[in-house]
Amino acid sequence: MIDPIFIAIIAGALGLAFAAFLATYVLRQDQGSERMREISGAIKEGAMAFLRREYQILAIFVVVITLVLGLIPPLGWWVALSFIFGALCSGIAGFIGMNMAIRSNSRTAAAAERSLNHGLRVSFRSGAVMGLCVVGIGILGLSILYIAFHSNIDFLKIIPGFGFGASLVAIFARAGGGIYTKAADTGADLVGKVEKGIPEDDPRNAAVIADFVGDNVGDVAGMGADLFESYVDAIIATMALSMLAWSATMTAPLTPDKETAWYLPMMVAAGGIIASIIGAFLVRVGEKPEMSALLGALRRGTFSASILTAGFAALAVYFLDASWGILWAVLAGLIAGMLIGESTNYFTSYSFGPTRRISEASQTGAGTTITAGFANGLMSTLPPIILVAIAILVAHYFAGMYGIAIAGIGMLATLGITLATDAYGPVADNAGGIVEMSDLPPEIRERTDALDSLGNTTAATGKGFAIGAAALTALALMVSYTQAVGIQFAAISLLDPVVVAGLFLGVLMPALFCALTLNAVGRTSFAIINEVRRQFREIKGIMTGEARPEYGKCVDICTKAALKEMIAPGLITVAAPIIVGFVLGPLALGGFLIGAIASGFLIAVMMANAGGSWDNAKKWIEKGNYGGKGSDAHKAAVVGDTVGDPFKDTSGPSLNIMIKLMSIIALVLAPVLAGVTGILG
Amino acid sequence: MIDPIFIAIIAGALGLAFAAFLATYVLRQDQGSERMREISGAIKEGAMAFLRREYQILAIFVVVITLVLGLIPPLGWWVALSFIFGALCSGIAGFIGMNMAIRSNSRTAAAAERSLNHGLRVSFRSGAVMGLCVVGIGILGLSILYIAFHSNIDFLKIIPGFGFGASLVAIFARAGGGIYTKAADTGADLVGKVEKGIPEDDPRNAAVIADFVGDNVGDVAGMGADLFESYVDAIIATMALSMLAWSATMTAPLTPDKETAWYLPMMVAAGGIIASIIGAFLVRVGEKPEMSALLGALRRGTFSASILTAGFAALAVYFLDASWGILWAVLAGLIAGMLIGESTNYFTSYSFGPTRRISEASQTGAGTTITAGFANGLMSTLPPIILVAIAILVAHYFAGMYGIAIAGIGMLATLGITLATDAYGPVADNAGGIVEMSDLPPEIRERTDALDSLGNTTAATGKGFAIGAAALTALALMVSYTQAVGIQFAAISLLDPVVVAGLFLGVLMPALFCALTLNAVGRTSFAIINEVRRQFREIKGIMTGEARPEYGKCVDICTKAALKEMIAPGLITVAAPIIVGFVLGPLALGGFLIGAIASGFLIAVMMANAGGSWDNAKKWIEKGNYGGKGSDAHKAAVVGDTVGDPFKDTSGPSLNIMIKLMSIIALVLAPVLAGVTGILG
Repeated sequence: MIDPIFIAIIAGALGLAFAAFLATYVLRQDQGSERMREISGAIKEGAMAFLRREYQILAIFVVVITLVLGLIPPLGWWVALSFIFGALCSGIAGFIGMNMAIRSNSRTAAAAERSLNHGLRVSFRSGAVMGLCVVGIGILGLSILYIAFHSNIDFLKIIPGFGFGASLVAIFARAGGGIYTKAADTGADLVGKVEKGIPEDDPRNAAVIADFVGDNVGDVAGMGADLFESYVDAIIATMALSMLAWSATMTAPLTPDKETAWYLPMMVAAGGIIASIIGAFLVRVGEKPEMSALLGALRRGTFSASILTAGFAALAVYFLDASWGILWAVLAGLIAGMLIGESTNYFTSYSFGPTRRISEASQTGAGTTITAGFANGLMSTLPPIILVAIAILVAHYFAGMYGIAIAGIGMLATLGITLATDAYGPVADNAGGIVEMSDLPPEIRERTDALDSLGNTTAATGKGFAIGAAALTALALMVSYTQAVGIQFAAISLLDPVVVAGLFLGVLMPALFCALTLNAVGRTSFAIINEVRRQFREIKGIMTGEARPEYGKCVDICTKAALKEMIAPGLITVAAPIIVGFVLGPLALGGFLIGAIASGFLIAVMMANAGGSWDNAKKWIEKGNYGGKGSDAHKAAVVGDTVGDPFKDTSGPSLNIMIKLMSIIALVLAPVLAGVTGILG
Repeated sequence: MIDPIFIAIIAGALGLAFAAFLATYVLRQDQGSERMREISGAIKEGAMAFLRREYQILAIFVVVITLVLGLIPPLGWWVALSFIFGALCSGIAGFIGMNMAIRSNSRTAAAAERSLNHGLRVSFRSGAVMGLCVVGIGILGLSILYIAFHSNIDFLKIIPGFGFGASLVAIFARAGGGIYTKAADTGADLVGKVEKGIPEDDPRNAAVIADFVGDNVGDVAGMGADLFESYVDAIIATMALSMLAWSATMTAPLTPDKETAWYLPMMVAAGGIIASIIGAFLVRVGEKPEMSALLGALRRGTFSASILTAGFAALAVYFLDASWGILWAVLAGLIAGMLIGESTNYFTSYSFGPTRRISEASQTGAGTTITAGFANGLMSTLPPIILVAIAILVAHYFAGMYGIAIAGIGMLATLGITLATDAYGPVADNAGGIVEMSDLPPEIRERTDALDSLGNTTAATGKGFAIGAAALTALALMVSYTQAVGIQFAAISLLDPVVVAGLFLGVLMPALFCALTLNAVGRTSFAIINEVRRQFREIKGIMTGEARPEYGKCVDICTKAALKEMIAPGLITVAAPIIVGFVLGPLALGGFLIGAIASGFLIAVMMANAGGSWDNAKKWIEKGNYGGKGSDAHKAAVVGDTVGDPFKDTSGPSLNIMIKLMSIIALVLAPVLAGVTGILG
């Protein structure tokens, strides 16, 4: 019998091979007119410049942390190596995804000139390249670590280092990219659409190229790093809990031996990759499809992938001779994830009451729009939290804490395809911008808008279950941390004030993180607004089209500001668990992590859904309701959308990463913290 | 030696006597012109009608719960009686406070005709009547219960019933009143100020009387019930933890006997009442004071009261022969409360950077105003959470869990005076409205505006420490619950998935509550807006002053809507802990309470401070910055204020009550829950 790890390697390689095949297809496509190439070139230049400088800054953090990890005796150089490898893999996944996206935008625009279906094919395939690269690189990276270190006695210390590296890169990439994209977007909209009354993506707007660049560095590179870390952290959390699934003294272990407990999560994930590839093949529509048919096709793809994942998980459990309880845990996660997706759709799509009520509230102005959207975001936390609570109880009932971790994998297993439906959105968005700037006929723009709008719907759904999975994964990491640091069940009591104080501080962290990132977006967009206003004022002939604005200036402002502003939120995320652990002790850190997970989950769902519903409430008005485009209701809805942008694309999604990063730091440092008693100890 | 409980009775009687003295003074004042009396009469009529109907609805809840409590064998009729007594006391405190306020508004307006100082004296004294009634009735009610039941074996079961009654009335009064006041306020502002460009409180606005009524039923009656329950719950929580301060088997008990552990919190509170009365005497200024001198005088009053409270607490500890650790716990609460007040002031006053930055952000529109204020609210949670965490650790270090409860009393002990500085604001606000509607000269309006603005500053500070005290009190109640239900330290572990699932559900509750109340305000103000618009459209001559709008219609709409809308949030608050306790079991309920306390604390601070800073950011612009009144920046700031209104006066402050109500329900039901195992048990 072959070593099961090779199945993971084969699945990963298949994923990458399929990604390469799709990439070749996309790159073969026509790049469009001279003008389109020119714009695409400017976007590429700005995006690459940002990524290069972002990675340079990240490299400093990575080097410093590598040295610290390597030099601390209970950790050592293997942990440091694992960390640096995780950071590298995450960087590569983000780089490939973005590289693909910036090469696909003009090609999608050109394809949309031919037909809607062509446009969909090019953009969806470029998104699938990223989706498959993320999962492929993730599982291959972990397989390499497994092969290299699974006989090392410190295997369970080394493997979290990989997750730490991935999470560290992710938090900076998500925050930096998120600040960039939303500052540029808001800045461009507020001066262009609101003040000057020119359309979105109009070439007369100085911030328009910065806005396109932002889509790539935030919604593509940032999201790629984000989901890479979600994926590998879910697997690592399960591996880290292996001693709860198998030990020599257990009377009814979940797996026949400890190696099985280690690679079983990789098998489930591998099944998910194969299922995603098959699902992607099922995303097919006729030559002249309706939008509803497109959405149906995407949903058919993701739904089939989920069913297949469940089937593959059953095979894995059967062939690895593991407990069937594990399958129930996978199913608990998978089903909860799908239901969270449905609930997200309900709360954010304009096909349903909640978002339409925000549109209705727009009739009485921006104030009521904001309140209605905020209330909707708060309300929308009900189903995900209840579903995750049920998933926790069910998974634990059938497979203990190990089950909770594996439920997280179940929720994320189909990432290959869901990420594809997510990542093609920004490509379509960029393509629309290129169409607008290249003076192509309006019906082409309508096609790219249709693609973009479809992407918004799938992106919101995708965000929902990514957050749910993050809660399960972070919880599993927190449990691993308590195991690693030697905290007993009876010790970490809610009647211990140190634990409660830690919990309060943990609850605070996501709020603090959001405050910093929201302010960062605010400050950066303020700078952009003033720059665009200045150009309109000082450069004569912009409005008449006789002079070109200086796009580069806005790109520069965004780049510098985003890189500067991403430091503080990233740094507090890294520093807080270390400070709490050393000052208040390991028990307080346990409470801190639970507090951060619960509050981060709540705030992340609230922000993502409030943002999504404001966006779609605006779109519902634009479809001709309550006065349509240009009405007072529309102006109020635009304000809602402006507020929602950083909610849903900067602060909200970063919380996913934050709760896992803090948990994994605790886990990595557990050997060091084991001797710490805290000031009150 | 006299029984120490008589000291509490004397302090309570002194508080009420002083309140009666102040009330006599206020009622002796001139009621102003015929027109002023007429307006005041309309306000009185609307407010009383609302309160009567609100109390009728509450009576149904109270009767049903009384029957349930009485009929459940482990609880019984003494508990039911205590519950009904608490509800009654709370209702009386709210009624007296509101009755005083609606009699003071025209008198304050008339006094302001003479001078600013006269206006301050009348309004401040009417606020002090409510402050002293709340604390006086609170401590007398508890003293009566003590005398009646302290030899009853079930004393510690009976006493929480009183808190349950007080909290139940408070949540409905706060939610109902809060929905009323903010819906009327927003509705009046959006049509009047924003659409029609007429001033605030203009008699041409059909919602103007409803707005005045709202100030009384929300900001006075609602707040009175709110702070009554804060006060008595803090004392009850400490009494309920008495077995952690004294038991016959303890080697170093905190008090010489169990009775001392029971009445010691009442002694600290009694000292606070005396200190508040003395502090109120110190609130004196010259005949023609500057605003800064007024604020200085108020702060001198509250600061002196704090010092005196500490002194009285030291005397109580000394004479009752209790552990000095208790004094340190009182001080921890007192100091943390004062620092929370300072931090609230920093984040919400336009004298400091955070609020000014919101004004600055208003230059780029409503979107950036909202984001900046929301970020500020999130950021402002940092000091209170850290301060409460420190207070928890310090109080516990010196006096165990009993110390945490008593720290909550320390934070609230000066309520007599701080509530006075809080409650006079709405009176001044109403007085200003009466001035506006009675065509008095503009300089009188300027005086009432100055009083109102001073009230806003002190109200924000007051809210801050009320929330902090709520967190400590609720935590103490949760600990009492675990004691009462028999949960061991080692059992309520963060590694138990049932506890974690409960915690997740608890974190959800405040979000859900806010969503319901925000939507209620939104729906009600939508109805008001449409009614005011209709009247402007259909009743000819309103704008020219030839016809009077139908004020009564708006009052009716608000009354009906607020009473209907308060049911759902109140009901889920009562039902949720019961459902969690019976379905998931007592351990899950413990986790649920901690989750709700932590998340409620965070969200309450965020909403109160975001709302306060939006309000003052608008005021900062109105003082002539960034274009002043009528500029685009001002319009954007008005949107911020509209969003902030229900944040700071409806949803945010209700969370205080919510977390205590849920905790006290758990405590009251503990004897019933003790045998429950939950579906997974």
